[in-house]
Amino acid sequence: MLPASRFVRLPSFAVEGERSVTFPDAFVAAGVATGVKKRGKLDLGILCSRRPTVSAATFTSNAAAAAPVRLTRETGACDRLQAVVVNAGNANACTGKDGLADAARMRLLTAQHLRLPVETVAVASTGVIGAPLEMGKIEPGIAAAAATLKPGGGEHFSQAIRTTDSFPKRGALELHLAEGVVRLGAAAKGCGMISPHMATMLCFVTCDAAVSVEDWRAMLIDAVERSFNRITVDGQESTNDMVVGMANGASAVRLGAAGLGQLAEALEALLLSLAVAMVADGEGATKAVRLTVDGARDAAEAERVARAVADSPLVKTAFFGCDANWGRVVQAAGQALGGDGATAGRKTAAAAMDVLYEDIPVVRGGRPVPLGDGAEERLADIMAQHEIDLHVAVDGGSASTTIYFSDLTHDYVTLNAEYTT
Amino acid sequence: MLPASRFVRLPSFAVEGERSVTFPDAFVAAGVATGVKKRGKLDLGILCSRRPTVSAATFTSNAAAAAPVRLTRETGACDRLQAVVVNAGNANACTGKDGLADAARMRLLTAQHLRLPVETVAVASTGVIGAPLEMGKIEPGIAAAAATLKPGGGEHFSQAIRTTDSFPKRGALELHLAEGVVRLGAAAKGCGMISPHMATMLCFVTCDAAVSVEDWRAMLIDAVERSFNRITVDGQESTNDMVVGMANGASAVRLGAAGLGQLAEALEALLLSLAVAMVADGEGATKAVRLTVDGARDAAEAERVARAVADSPLVKTAFFGCDANWGRVVQAAGQALGGDGATAGRKTAAAAMDVLYEDIPVVRGGRPVPLGDGAEERLADIMAQHEIDLHVAVDGGSASTTIYFSDLTHDYVTLNAEYTT
Repeated sequence: MLPASRFVRLPSFAVEGERSVTFPDAFVAAGVATGVKKRGKLDLGILCSRRPTVSAATFTSNAAAAAPVRLTRETGACDRLQAVVVNAGNANACTGKDGLADAARMRLLTAQHLRLPVETVAVASTGVIGAPLEMGKIEPGIAAAAATLKPGGGEHFSQAIRTTDSFPKRGALELHLAEGVVRLGAAAKGCGMISPHMATMLCFVTCDAAVSVEDWRAMLIDAVERSFNRITVDGQESTNDMVVGMANGASAVRLGAAGLGQLAEALEALLLSLAVAMVADGEGATKAVRLTVDGARDAAEAERVARAVADSPLVKTAFFGCDANWGRVVQAAGQALGGDGATAGRKTAAAAMDVLYEDIPVVRGGRPVPLGDGAEERLADIMAQHEIDLHVAVDGGSASTTIYFSDLTHDYVTLNAEYTT
Repeated sequence: MLPASRFVRLPSFAVEGERSVTFPDAFVAAGVATGVKKRGKLDLGILCSRRPTVSAATFTSNAAAAAPVRLTRETGACDRLQAVVVNAGNANACTGKDGLADAARMRLLTAQHLRLPVETVAVASTGVIGAPLEMGKIEPGIAAAAATLKPGGGEHFSQAIRTTDSFPKRGALELHLAEGVVRLGAAAKGCGMISPHMATMLCFVTCDAAVSVEDWRAMLIDAVERSFNRITVDGQESTNDMVVGMANGASAVRLGAAGLGQLAEALEALLLSLAVAMVADGEGATKAVRLTVDGARDAAEAERVARAVADSPLVKTAFFGCDANWGRVVQAAGQALGGDGATAGRKTAAAAMDVLYEDIPVVRGGRPVPLGDGAEERLADIMAQHEIDLHVAVDGGSASTTIYFSDLTHDYVTLNAEYTT
């Protein structure tokens, strides 16, 4: 899967397929250039199932959610979405009632062209915040995309949803199960959790297995929770994040309990590969770090510690500098454990903290571990890797969590300081 | 006061004095070079009142608190501290039981030289994490500092507590009150909330007014809450933060209710001037922003919104780039308003958000405000200022808060990526 990451394990019953949302049977897609993006870049895509589906969707929890998020979440049939229309280059966020009307118009036109009920069409947008959609370009774009839908259209669709991503994020798996062969496909975009004028995290998932809407929803939400909800580039949640998954049963393979478990496992691997790709492609990023926190008193404490370390600019710059600066890891974890006004904290916890980079312990029981023969060189090698395992053990319980994060670099500052409105 | 900041207002009854902790009567101080810092830099200071005091202290809430913090907090007489001993260059953090013993030894030696009960001596440290204190250098340093204590020693003391600060942070006020004249002095250090191998926020406050310990403690805690607890450079709370305030009554001026109120006002102005100086001197910082959030449902929500905006790397890089990128402000505020697992969030709030840079509204009711004649130029001028007022109004309540933050720059990344252990 793209990119090759040792953080992702392909299930034994899965083989990679043509990396496309149209890899599963009876899905069609298209991507066109409307002129919203410059230089003729593809910027509007439609993805559609030729058959009715079961579906599920997750959305940003940002209170400044964009118009397409609000429209799809609040007036859509999220359990039987059959098509999505996506535009890139304009997020249709902070656009008020006119923005909601534009999103509804995008949905209506797409539904009319596809001859689907409006509520079965999801709308997603990504790009500049606060600018009105250029509907004079979007409307003919929808017509053009609807007219060019085809089984091999997944690649154009994937290109059309990109903004500042340096490479397309898509994947597909063919699953050889006892019940038969089913396929999964996915296309995603995102390289900051957000860079509000030109980014967002979107993902569209297709599947041709025959599954119930309850099973599909449960496995999609679970897979999102274990993939996209476990990454951070800069701690910033977009106004436009959306994941839509559609399963159309076109394989005619109905899954039993074992097959459902395998599909869930494969779905998680697929989404995790795309999520890790977003971290690796994080704005300015040179490294992806997998942080495991364990020994926490409860899940909330594990999460606080993980986010505190993963979002600490001091920890992130140290990784950029290839410096195993464990003092910053202990400080950030200690800050999270100390709590704030809203969360009850601990008075002292440093005494029982362990920190490891890969297999090298650098802190045990809150104190530095003298580096033995060769350990210094091994640590330097580890810090030069593109993917690094970081392990923080606190004490007091058995709750654990894992999170993936990128480093903080000059290129991040350049990209975000020099990008002007 | 240093630095001159329009965010700080000097009370009419106050005039600036010699910027030193020994400006108030009957305080003596010294700073010496122990050899822990290179090139003969001062790195150990003692500050002492010649008379008994009332005192108060506040400490980091970091669960990985350093040995001197734990010693002073847990075994000191924080209401009658009469001296502080501070070393710079080594934080005595993550040093386990040996570190606690070293901190206790620093306190014992200082108390012996000064002929004070040990529990009336506070110990503070700042510098490298995880390295044992070089007691062979510290012990003679304490003897040397104790032997050179003098009324004019505040400047040496102020130099001895610095690490990477680019300028000393100290101030003093003479208050002309109905009851008589009293003096305040303060010395602080800090240019990141933390940069764990070479920083921390420390502040020592002296006063020669005669006040009760309850009044002094209340006004010190309140002033810290409104100054040091309202700043952020990188959102990272040190393992070693400490504020100690001592009032010795040497002026023989006992304050009534009005005078106490005036002293509290002056104390807050003094500490705020030092806090704003830390932001201005934040690692790599080019700007200090005063963010006011109002209209929140409660104090906790106001705080979440303020911290989310102030610590957003996207907002901070935009200020570095002189870009009034309000989309990032709305996104960060929306993320905080949306809540997370631990805090109940709002579904939508963008519709009612206002954003102003100084007096220029750029968002009203969640939508961009068309910039009128000259507003674009005015906005560019504002973004070029060293101190900028940013105002975010949400809706739903009347809670408000103010926070001061720095921008995120290439120099921050350089300082923290290239500084290796």
